[in-house]
Amino acid sequence: MKLYWPIGLSKSMPNRTSRGELLDETLRDYTRHVMGPDVEVEIGWLEKTTSLLTSTYLGMINDVHVINDILKAEARGFDGAIVGGHWDPGLYAAREAAEIPVAGPGESAMMLAATLGRKFAMLTVMDGYVPVIENNIRTYGLEARAITRNPVRKFGMTYENFVRCLEGKDDEFLVAFEKTARECIADGADVVIAGGQLFGPAFVRHGFHTIGNTGVPVIETTACGLKFAQTLVSLKRSIGLKKSEHIHAPFHTPPRDVLNEVRATFGLS
Amino acid sequence: MKLYWPIGLSKSMPNRTSRGELLDETLRDYTRHVMGPDVEVEIGWLEKTTSLLTSTYLGMINDVHVINDILKAEARGFDGAIVGGHWDPGLYAAREAAEIPVAGPGESAMMLAATLGRKFAMLTVMDGYVPVIENNIRTYGLEARAITRNPVRKFGMTYENFVRCLEGKDDEFLVAFEKTARECIADGADVVIAGGQLFGPAFVRHGFHTIGNTGVPVIETTACGLKFAQTLVSLKRSIGLKKSEHIHAPFHTPPRDVLNEVRATFGLS
Amino acid sequence: MKLYWPIGLSKSMPNRTSRGELLDETLRDYTRHVMGPDVEVEIGWLEKTTSLLTSTYLGMINDVHVINDILKAEARGFDGAIVGGHWDPGLYAAREAAEIPVAGPGESAMMLAATLGRKFAMLTVMDGYVPVIENNIRTYGLEARAITRNPVRKFGMTYENFVRCLEGKDDEFLVAFEKTARECIADGADVVIAGGQLFGPAFVRHGFHTIGNTGVPVIETTACGLKFAQTLVSLKRSIGLKKSEHIHAPFHTPPRDVLNEVRATFGLS
Amino acid sequence: MKLYWPIGLSKSMPNRTSRGELLDETLRDYTRHVMGPDVEVEIGWLEKTTSLLTSTYLGMINDVHVINDILKAEARGFDGAIVGGHWDPGLYAAREAAEIPVAGPGESAMMLAATLGRKFAMLTVMDGYVPVIENNIRTYGLEARAITRNPVRKFGMTYENFVRCLEGKDDEFLVAFEKTARECIADGADVVIAGGQLFGPAFVRHGFHTIGNTGVPVIETTACGLKFAQTLVSLKRSIGLKKSEHIHAPFHTPPRDVLNEVRATFGLS
Amino acid sequence: MKLYWPIGLSKSMPNRTSRGELLDETLRDYTRHVMGPDVEVEIGWLEKTTSLLTSTYLGMINDVHVINDILKAEARGFDGAIVGGHWDPGLYAAREAAEIPVAGPGESAMMLAATLGRKFAMLTVMDGYVPVIENNIRTYGLEARAITRNPVRKFGMTYENFVRCLEGKDDEFLVAFEKTARECIADGADVVIAGGQLFGPAFVRHGFHTIGNTGVPVIETTACGLKFAQTLVSLKRSIGLKKSEHIHAPFHTPPRDVLNEVRATFGLS
Amino acid sequence: MKLYWPIGLSKSMPNRTSRGELLDETLRDYTRHVMGPDVEVEIGWLEKTTSLLTSTYLGMINDVHVINDILKAEARGFDGAIVGGHWDPGLYAAREAAEIPVAGPGESAMMLAATLGRKFAMLTVMDGYVPVIENNIRTYGLEARAITRNPVRKFGMTYENFVRCLEGKDDEFLVAFEKTARECIADGADVVIAGGQLFGPAFVRHGFHTIGNTGVPVIETTACGLKFAQTLVSLKRSIGLKKSEHIHAPFHTPPRDVLNEVRATFGLS
Repeated sequence: MKLYWPIGLSKSMPNRTSRGELLDETLRDYTRHVMGPDVEVEIGWLEKTTSLLTSTYLGMINDVHVINDILKAEARGFDGAIVGGHWDPGLYAAREAAEIPVAGPGESAMMLAATLGRKFAMLTVMDGYVPVIENNIRTYGLEARAITRNPVRKFGMTYENFVRCLEGKDDEFLVAFEKTARECIADGADVVIAGGQLFGPAFVRHGFHTIGNTGVPVIETTACGLKFAQTLVSLKRSIGLKKSEHIHAPFHTPPRDVLNEVRATFGLS
Repeated sequence: MKLYWPIGLSKSMPNRTSRGELLDETLRDYTRHVMGPDVEVEIGWLEKTTSLLTSTYLGMINDVHVINDILKAEARGFDGAIVGGHWDPGLYAAREAAEIPVAGPGESAMMLAATLGRKFAMLTVMDGYVPVIENNIRTYGLEARAITRNPVRKFGMTYENFVRCLEGKDDEFLVAFEKTARECIADGADVVIAGGQLFGPAFVRHGFHTIGNTGVPVIETTACGLKFAQTLVSLKRSIGLKKSEHIHAPFHTPPRDVLNEVRATFGLS
Repeated sequence: MKLYWPIGLSKSMPNRTSRGELLDETLRDYTRHVMGPDVEVEIGWLEKTTSLLTSTYLGMINDVHVINDILKAEARGFDGAIVGGHWDPGLYAAREAAEIPVAGPGESAMMLAATLGRKFAMLTVMDGYVPVIENNIRTYGLEARAITRNPVRKFGMTYENFVRCLEGKDDEFLVAFEKTARECIADGADVVIAGGQLFGPAFVRHGFHTIGNTGVPVIETTACGLKFAQTLVSLKRSIGLKKSEHIHAPFHTPPRDVLNEVRATFGLS
Repeated sequence: MKLYWPIGLSKSMPNRTSRGELLDETLRDYTRHVMGPDVEVEIGWLEKTTSLLTSTYLGMINDVHVINDILKAEARGFDGAIVGGHWDPGLYAAREAAEIPVAGPGESAMMLAATLGRKFAMLTVMDGYVPVIENNIRTYGLEARAITRNPVRKFGMTYENFVRCLEGKDDEFLVAFEKTARECIADGADVVIAGGQLFGPAFVRHGFHTIGNTGVPVIETTACGLKFAQTLVSLKRSIGLKKSEHIHAPFHTPPRDVLNEVRATFGLS
Repeated sequence: MKLYWPIGLSKSMPNRTSRGELLDETLRDYTRHVMGPDVEVEIGWLEKTTSLLTSTYLGMINDVHVINDILKAEARGFDGAIVGGHWDPGLYAAREAAEIPVAGPGESAMMLAATLGRKFAMLTVMDGYVPVIENNIRTYGLEARAITRNPVRKFGMTYENFVRCLEGKDDEFLVAFEKTARECIADGADVVIAGGQLFGPAFVRHGFHTIGNTGVPVIETTACGLKFAQTLVSLKRSIGLKKSEHIHAPFHTPPRDVLNEVRATFGLS
Repeated sequence: MKLYWPIGLSKSMPNRTSRGELLDETLRDYTRHVMGPDVEVEIGWLEKTTSLLTSTYLGMINDVHVINDILKAEARGFDGAIVGGHWDPGLYAAREAAEIPVAGPGESAMMLAATLGRKFAMLTVMDGYVPVIENNIRTYGLEARAITRNPVRKFGMTYENFVRCLEGKDDEFLVAFEKTARECIADGADVVIAGGQLFGPAFVRHGFHTIGNTGVPVIETTACGLKFAQTLVSLKRSIGLKKSEHIHAPFHTPPRDVLNEVRATFGLS
């Protein structure tokens, strides 16, 4: 099985020179760790990207290309895809446009969280993702499973302390995560979803899977999204499970010829 | 006061040769009728457009350009804008990106409907808008004010019978509208929102403002959107009312330099 | 266009001797500032009033007369009305009884707030309004757009520090407002609605339109109510927009003869 | 124990000459049947009343006097009260103003219904009560326990066929009730609440307590309201249970001196 | 009238040797105090019980026997029953299996609370009851009437300080209760439900019925459950009120022969 | 990986002599088809069972033993489990008691459905499951993703026409399923969940995976439950994902010694 993961970033994002290679290598290892030998995950990089993904408008400009890449991956024979980050950028549009199953890391993590506890909270890395993810919770219909007061919160990480954590130098990153997680727990959370594409490898390295002495599990979104995509592909093969193509379904595939014509018109494809 | 209305269409949409001019002229008359002499409304046309606006992905490709045009209108001195059609394409992204007030025709109509009755239904022109508008109702938080069973329904119009109605030749279009409206009323609606950018002129021509013998008003979205935009501009001037720029607000304006840089990078502006 | 605003108070309320004249003059200036030269706003005073408007029962006794005054204003040729204060006293009953559009200051502010941010909170001046306004949020169906924990809060103003603020002597009133507003923001609010009939003039005088350094706008209800009423009257003229007269609509107008007979029976009119 | 039931009507309502005496006698018998010998129920009649109780505004004029009568009953030593009809006219205002427990027939029936089945529907006698009761369901927070599609419906009774039923002449009234009840059951109801002050005696006479062959119970509101009031009085005596007097509670009693002064001012008491 | 109250405990629970007798005597006195001379309440003890009732699985094992005892009580001629504690163990199953009315102490208290204030909170004695009761609130459909942030909270009692309170030695137990209750009030509660089977006698002894200086009533669940059961039995006698036997109702009684056969097979009865 | 599936039935259920063997063989084949060679699924049969699983009380008696068998399977080295049928009997209790992941077929299908369309409906085989599954939807917090009017419906199958379908003799069973499914689609469903433990093999045999000409997928619950359980086990191994052990989590594992002691006391284990 081949899954495509367009990460929504370009390797040469401004001011973060080393990020691309680090991300690429670390994430490859992590996806192999999570998915095992039977599933191949290709990480897709954008040629150019916006430097501010928290903006709805700038994110949309980006998503147009991310989804275009998913359509190309579909044509190249991939079996399924997940969309970039924990805020599920372009998820509903991608799921509509493609015929292969598309999972959202955030959506998958929330669905799993709803089977592991009573109420979840999601931590994120930038303030701008807060309203995006809060709206996702509502779109997915899961308000009753998230804490009511500020279910999405930014925690005080920096890119630098994250890298130190990833390299095993110190755990300030985890300390910052725990601090905000404990505030969520005081407000009723019994499951915490960790929003950040690179977090998985750091958590595995430090064996960080629960908030100490609380019993509250920490859910990493990428692993959830990939496993969810695998499940959808597997059920498609065995029992023909597919997205709804009802005319009122949000994921009804547009006619392929129209889709391709428009992509051509707008310089995509 | 100058308002910009990017209609989200190009004048030369495939297979609908006469549509552009008819739309342009009819809508100009209508906006003058609704807004009076003190408000100037400029209707914006796209150079190129997708031929299928019901698709989330294709709509997104379109919206990127519509919003770009709103940003240009802002630079040209416009005071406010509304986004194209009754399904509020790109509303939240436009409102975020621009600093001038941006109203949604559908959102405005729903907010007004919530003050005119108990539960509304919205009629639309294509099946593909049904899930989009249903999700809008949820995003706007108005589920409790819409009927519970299928609050958004397509009615059986054709472009041809609409044009005949607009030209005063017959009223098959209104008959079709009423039929579906009455089904909504049986399911609890006491207000009906009419989704269609050109409907206003036809309704005015036929004096069609309620569903006969039911007392149920018919709300036309464009007029609502324009008046809402005017109200927002007016309150901005008198009492400084503006969108929230809180870091967790969905409409927090991205830094202008980043916005312009990204637009340049992606061939917009 | 002529709008009627029955303020719900009498000029000679007990223990507040100077209030009536101050209110009258200040509010006249403010409505002119907000509405411009084309809209005339008449402020209506009651002959006698209860001295405790936070009480549901006493408020009801008052509202009977307020609504009666709206019906008289309708007969005198007014085009629309708003009901007194930010807690929308008697709004639904007034909207039902009158045929001219009736807006609620609180309702209008909440509807506008829902287009400016994600979640609002409302500050009020007396504890007794808290449950009234919380029930309004629910009646309007906007729970999802208000913060979940205590969406309505009293702040620590006194009539004296308000007057000093209005006269430009100091800004203790604004300091008290900000303090509670910031607590709401910590609980998730990105828009704050200011409940108090006289607040607008004080805010304008001090240029107080956002909570400093938060980007959170402060919405004044009277201006919103008046602009909303103007919009409804304007749309009634241009596109025939009216409240629902469906037999199941909450605003279905009672037969005029019955209405007048009952008013006569009970010494109203 | 003495309970007061202000029925919200005057004995000489226009065009219904015989109604007052019939009601009075029938309801006395019924309350004795339901409450047994230990509870005395006094039925209160208004001197004058509006002829249209479905109107929110006219109802309000009425309720001012009904609640005044409850306050007088309290002063006369009554232990509790219920408000008139199944649409709970003035319930929240009465409960606030009085210190004795006040139950609502509709509220009580809905609370009991929520323990007897999964989803209820309420049948009513006039279209105008539909929005009132739907709003009550929302105020009481019981939407999840009522059917979603049109939870309140008028059924096709006439006063004449009701009287024939009460007198045992025929059962057309019950046939009409059952017809609408079965439609509600098809939409998911498993409990039906019967809204009508006189229905209890007719139901008892005909042994009409379920919808035939469906297992769905029919709940009569007056009996529920009286028993609920008795329960509240009894728990007040044994364990001191009382309404909330918190400053943010909707039922916080206004100061007695203010209340009495206002009543005097407005010619009540 | 005879009511059965299976308390869900055995007299000889491990490590709490004196508890059984104390409970039995105290509760007998309390039920007589609450119910008066006309209602006989039999307290039912289990022969064996699990030592951890907060566990869903262990509670289920217990409930099988508790419900069996209710069925036996029904056969012995009891008129109604309540299920053990404030978390309503086995309520829906008991109500289904039995034909006599079965009330839940927690459910009854919540329904009453919803008529006494705006938003309630429930205090409980062990952490494990928190998710159980939160799910009950949702099952009963009363989320809108409970505070949103942590509506169910454990307070810091010990069995020892409870006993001292019951014996009138000190009131540390009440102090602990008040502390947590005040936190709930700060989060919006205006009614507090006290979850604990023995609390009633202690409250009565100390005249503890409100949280001092807040006006917030304290609702004791056992008294509510018993009065609710009495009301249901009484209405069954006077107006035939019964649980829904609709095939889709959650309380549809299983065929008696099947029920008895299964009980025999599994060594119950 | 080894998964345990206690099917909740005994092989010799009354009046269905051939059922046990047919079920066993058919389901073995199906689980191999769905799960592939790397996952071993053991189907667990009860020694004795109730003959009416739709009853909440009788189901509870059964579930006590089903969960006991899951605990035994855990001790025997199984990695995960699913609970019997599409109504998730005993799911929350099983998930609490066991430390291995436990999935619910219905819960898993609903979570997946929420990613495939907008609103689902679930078809079931007996009326008695309707309230159980409706309550599950509420417990899982997915009301917003199910149709509002009667989201759970029985369809007109018989065991006989199911068997004929399974054997390829005719498709009356599928015709009956489609009929009810189309009614759900008319009420807004764009995904249909098929509730029935044996349905998968019949669907695969007939290639029945969508409702013809509607684009609506049919989701079979057993396959979903098994894949969900596999995902949970896999994520436990790779990233340590586990249920919440927070003291307020519904799945907090009871102390093992208490659990085993109680099982011994009650003749389980």
